[in-house]
Amino acid sequence: MTDHDGINGAESVIQAALASGIDTCFANPGTTEIPLVRALDEIPGVRPVLALFEGVCTGAADGYGRMASRPALTLLHLGPGFANGIAYLHDARRARSPVVNLIGEHATWHQAADPPLHSDIESLARPVSAWVKRGQVATNLAAELREAVEVASVKPGRIATLILPHDLQLAPGSRLTEPLQIAAPARVSAERVDEARRALVNPESVAILLGAHGLRDRALAAVARIQARTGVSLLAEAFPARWERGLGRPVITRLPYFPEYAVPVIARFQTIILAGAPSPVSFFGYPGTPSHYIAPQQQTVELAGPEEDVETALEELAAALGAPPRATTAASQSPAASAILNNSLTGHLTGRTMTAVVAALLPPGAIVMDEGHTSTGAHTAYFQAAAPHSYLTQPGGAIGLGMPCAIGAAIACPDRPVVTLQADGSGMYTVQSLWTMAREGLNIKTIICNNSGYRIVGIEMQRAGVTRVGDRARSLMEMEAPQIDWVGVSRGLGVPAARVVTPGELAEVLRRELAAPGPFLIDAVLEAE
Amino acid sequence: MTDHDGINGAESVIQAALASGIDTCFANPGTTEIPLVRALDEIPGVRPVLALFEGVCTGAADGYGRMASRPALTLLHLGPGFANGIAYLHDARRARSPVVNLIGEHATWHQAADPPLHSDIESLARPVSAWVKRGQVATNLAAELREAVEVASVKPGRIATLILPHDLQLAPGSRLTEPLQIAAPARVSAERVDEARRALVNPESVAILLGAHGLRDRALAAVARIQARTGVSLLAEAFPARWERGLGRPVITRLPYFPEYAVPVIARFQTIILAGAPSPVSFFGYPGTPSHYIAPQQQTVELAGPEEDVETALEELAAALGAPPRATTAASQSPAASAILNNSLTGHLTGRTMTAVVAALLPPGAIVMDEGHTSTGAHTAYFQAAAPHSYLTQPGGAIGLGMPCAIGAAIACPDRPVVTLQADGSGMYTVQSLWTMAREGLNIKTIICNNSGYRIVGIEMQRAGVTRVGDRARSLMEMEAPQIDWVGVSRGLGVPAARVVTPGELAEVLRRELAAPGPFLIDAVLEAE
Repeated sequence: MTDHDGINGAESVIQAALASGIDTCFANPGTTEIPLVRALDEIPGVRPVLALFEGVCTGAADGYGRMASRPALTLLHLGPGFANGIAYLHDARRARSPVVNLIGEHATWHQAADPPLHSDIESLARPVSAWVKRGQVATNLAAELREAVEVASVKPGRIATLILPHDLQLAPGSRLTEPLQIAAPARVSAERVDEARRALVNPESVAILLGAHGLRDRALAAVARIQARTGVSLLAEAFPARWERGLGRPVITRLPYFPEYAVPVIARFQTIILAGAPSPVSFFGYPGTPSHYIAPQQQTVELAGPEEDVETALEELAAALGAPPRATTAASQSPAASAILNNSLTGHLTGRTMTAVVAALLPPGAIVMDEGHTSTGAHTAYFQAAAPHSYLTQPGGAIGLGMPCAIGAAIACPDRPVVTLQADGSGMYTVQSLWTMAREGLNIKTIICNNSGYRIVGIEMQRAGVTRVGDRARSLMEMEAPQIDWVGVSRGLGVPAARVVTPGELAEVLRRELAAPGPFLIDAVLEAE
Repeated sequence: MTDHDGINGAESVIQAALASGIDTCFANPGTTEIPLVRALDEIPGVRPVLALFEGVCTGAADGYGRMASRPALTLLHLGPGFANGIAYLHDARRARSPVVNLIGEHATWHQAADPPLHSDIESLARPVSAWVKRGQVATNLAAELREAVEVASVKPGRIATLILPHDLQLAPGSRLTEPLQIAAPARVSAERVDEARRALVNPESVAILLGAHGLRDRALAAVARIQARTGVSLLAEAFPARWERGLGRPVITRLPYFPEYAVPVIARFQTIILAGAPSPVSFFGYPGTPSHYIAPQQQTVELAGPEEDVETALEELAAALGAPPRATTAASQSPAASAILNNSLTGHLTGRTMTAVVAALLPPGAIVMDEGHTSTGAHTAYFQAAAPHSYLTQPGGAIGLGMPCAIGAAIACPDRPVVTLQADGSGMYTVQSLWTMAREGLNIKTIICNNSGYRIVGIEMQRAGVTRVGDRARSLMEMEAPQIDWVGVSRGLGVPAARVVTPGELAEVLRRELAAPGPFLIDAVLEAE
């Protein structure tokens, strides 16, 4: 099975990955990765998933990491291949997803010749990686892979990038001997828990701002107990990586996107307890608005940072408060899903009615990837009344993540349907995703929020005080000429599709397709609100 | 027209670009680029071209730079938006194309908040940029834009990247006062010309290896004179950025891709005179093959490096040799286009017959972008017998450049038809290009070399000695499941299309479409050779 008596470097890497619990590799390999491709072929256990663009690989690794809570591999080709994956590694870094990137590199002896594909891979990798290492000795590669998995796997997750020169992949390697040792996230001190407890003496002026693993089920169980004891208000960071949401989970107000809406939400409270969320900041810096939402006269209590053990901290806080051992979340104030649906079916198909229909029809256990941007942003509270689900957003803001992230989520959770709300401008960034959905038969229903443009650019022009948009500016924000036929594109890439123009059509097609396995795309042609 | 009495920073940048001869901006802007979008709107003269993915912007800037010999702008959104353009900036760097990137950045005062889209832009930009600057003072931005154009415009061309914080775009700027000063490329010394002259005393054992501007018309006129005087052999670098080719131009042997074919070509000569080409190296490092093709016992004479004034050097060499003042290139040894066509129409549609048909039908003055990879690589000598044309390849090896580069070439040369030979696997990287072709009505005929896979990966597996390819490896090199319906995808993105399965069908459709303006896609379904 090898070029040698024992094992070569590439085989040692794949064996080490397998021994470290890795089962998936999102790949787009080339010549410098051939020994790794051979090793994937010869060593069963790591499933290779081909994507037709590297951004699909890295976005999928993000989605996989969020749902599996352990890393997948990416396998990328030299600097330029890696570069195509950077944008969604940026998103994965902000989502704190565990990801291990393998980058094939020119043979060590060939690099001095500066061949055409040679470039400074480390300079490209560092901005998105917590750990970057270049293999120097073939017999060390297995241990370096293990180290990459260890770095990536510290909860909630980090990105580790291992550069593997071609000659080292071919040279004799060593089998992994030492077991994986994953460090636990840092525990918060008793003092910090007590500070939060004291802040909750007057709970009516306090909000807990939840983020990272503070929005997963173990933390939310503690949050429900704290709320049952204190009645404290609950906020969620604006762009959670993963939020366990829907009926039975605590009702949490998501921070709005624009500062003029977010600051008043924060300003209602004297004290903000941060539980897994960093101090909230504006997505962009606008003249006359602050970077940080919490004003100097407000009190910030950092119970746990996003990379600390927020779940244990919330449980300790619940205990310190004398909260009941178990709490049932109060029923949502929002109307029931059936009422939402009925109220939405009569109107036009807009971002609001689209979001309402999707929330109302969501099957229990679904995964929602929301990259609806301007079409869904103001309406995601509908998901509070939906069946229990995992709700994923885009913490890093690199658009086009939606469909790739859905691929990774679907592969991590093959028994759960995935519903993607995909803005059209963003969706075109990674339209190649549809082919991988078809190839792998993934149970992903993609809803294109089709407003024929980059609506956010128009909104930002308005916000900047522009009253008359000329032809040249308009040409940079609309996608009306030509109109994209999403149904044709989707079918061309192997995913069946339908176009809908009313809430009723959307409900009919979505209901029908949710009952069937496999991928489907719905081109939801939206009217302005 | 401004937020201020005078001019703001963004307007000063666009005015400076206009004053520096820039007329085109390939853009995909977001919130941090709004003032620049407004400036493009308010100041006529710079044409914004929207692409639905940043790689299309940068690849188009490469193609524009090659054909216009002056830079276009790109306008990209923060680190992640820029990252999506890196792969084709890598190609542009290797092509030595002039390109000026503008990157919108967070407001200076907002960066400390580490907002979601914040990242280390310089670290991403440096590997592909000869010059990177971050605006610090709004009144300096115009001069910095001018400096970027000056850096980029030194022949053959370089990449300059200017980072523009949002608040500086909005702050009062200064109009450009100093004129553009573009440095001439370095002249080569008389000694180097004389060394080449002496090497040509025995011309039968000498080859001139041409690259960069050595393959453009002014240089080729001198090369024809040198050849008329000496009978020296002529070679071209393996992946020229732009090669003026076809009937009436000197017959030049292109270096093959794989070292086992390229080394024997080089080994026929005792002396290699480098004229615009660097010392040729293998694309990848294979065990047992050298990095450099020129062996130690051979003589290398560097007449001019790719960034030196190769045109003047070749003219001086022609004069030193006493070459005739004007030379007509001998007719090609290859059969005439009509014979090539007739010989190709009867067989199967393969890479060979496809390339032959395209070469035979090429209209005079066409631009050919060849990203056919394994489908065209062995057959491009057919273009020697074609009508005179500009022949573009991919010097950097970052796949997917073909369609974006064609966009830039078509915009730089609106009166010349563009024919793109586009490998299917590579084409999927930047399939969004089709929409921009449709939107701008560009006269580009795209021929998909459809072999349903990444054929190179299979070839490299064979070369690595793999006799049995298993399912997992196979899954990383074929695109057969599902088959991509390129006609459907193309029409969905606004470009009419047809599928052809014989050389005759290809000839019929191509001939018909070349007679009409606007974009068209031909899905050429290829059989194995």
